[in-house]
Amino acid sequence: MSELTIWTYDWVPKGPRGFVRDLRLRWACEEAGVSYAVRTVPFDDRETNHLAQQPFGQVPFLKDDELEIFESGAGLLHLARKSDKLMPRDPVGEAETLQWTIAALNSIEMVTVPWWFLNMSGDADNKLAPWMTKRLNHMESVLSKQEWLACGRFTIADLLMADVLRVPDVRAFGKRPATEGYVTRMTSRTGFRQAHADQIAHFHAGDRKRAHKL
Amino acid sequence: MSELTIWTYDWVPKGPRGFVRDLRLRWACEEAGVSYAVRTVPFDDRETNHLAQQPFGQVPFLKDDELEIFESGAGLLHLARKSDKLMPRDPVGEAETLQWTIAALNSIEMVTVPWWFLNMSGDADNKLAPWMTKRLNHMESVLSKQEWLACGRFTIADLLMADVLRVPDVRAFGKRPATEGYVTRMTSRTGFRQAHADQIAHFHAGDRKRAHKL
Repeated sequence: MSELTIWTYDWVPKGPRGFVRDLRLRWACEEAGVSYAVRTVPFDDRETNHLAQQPFGQVPFLKDDELEIFESGAGLLHLARKSDKLMPRDPVGEAETLQWTIAALNSIEMVTVPWWFLNMSGDADNKLAPWMTKRLNHMESVLSKQEWLACGRFTIADLLMADVLRVPDVRAFGKRPATEGYVTRMTSRTGFRQAHADQIAHFHAGDRKRAHKL
Repeated sequence: MSELTIWTYDWVPKGPRGFVRDLRLRWACEEAGVSYAVRTVPFDDRETNHLAQQPFGQVPFLKDDELEIFESGAGLLHLARKSDKLMPRDPVGEAETLQWTIAALNSIEMVTVPWWFLNMSGDADNKLAPWMTKRLNHMESVLSKQEWLACGRFTIADLLMADVLRVPDVRAFGKRPATEGYVTRMTSRTGFRQAHADQIAHFHAGDRKRAHKL
């Protein structure tokens, strides 16, 4: 495989550590067994300091030889085209992986992230709660019938859906045993644990550099 | 190209007509110059009547010979793999199309839809408004510098981003001339106009069948 670089922030506060979306790309690389480098853009002034590389000031973005790609979901689909450990190669397997990958981004995360945002801003009457309940109940129904989302095996669809569902406030929003079991299984994988540990270590190293600079 | 069927509802109220997401797949087929059939599931009891085909009770879903795929974004990516009118075939062109397609779904629509939902529920203090402003301003900056999102030509990334941005309340949320020009250009395309007219006609025909049944 070619030379891969995952770009993330040089530092983030304690709160988001373990949840910054470079973890999705790290995890995919671990599952595929490919090596990668990590490079950084400054967290400070992030809304304007790397707009040429990421038009919303976010991370991650991926460099694969001369090719650059932003949006973690797009990075995952790009990596999945390179390793069948992330997505089967037959048309039905690809379609199943694709639909559940997009479902994680556009049917589940589109609800969980704004719901979480309202929750964080102390909105006692969170008007997104009924929508959240419906979508998570649909997922519970799906996950009570199958171990994996696509093709009866691990794919980037599971990686992404588990990353969306493992957010503590989402996990605590009602009891859904099949979903909880799914999140536990996915986050017990060696690939996730390595990616998570590496992200925590990366931002911990960022603490030292930041202390030195300040 | 193979036998394509787009599944949508048999009927919807007047409000969402012209905005139901089967339009995205119709539009893509028009741009690619491929024929397709339309089949329906009942709008009534939609939350439970077709969960075997679409796990959230939504439309559209796509049938392509024996292959079935839900999520409009996934359907678009599937169609794009079949026609280079929807996405270039070179790796850089594919990556650019992919990143902007996912950006439309996960960085823009993830804000516009929940914002719109709160707006509709009469929330005077819409806490998603600052996030909405930021993201739309970033898009305005991008669209003030380029005519197309990817590869200097029309792709499904434009189709999807324009479909997200053309929602009237989103369009009316502040003045962004580059974005407005972009939406006007994209929705003036023959493919969009045909898809839009066909969806309106489809639900109009649904009115007559529904009146007959009631």
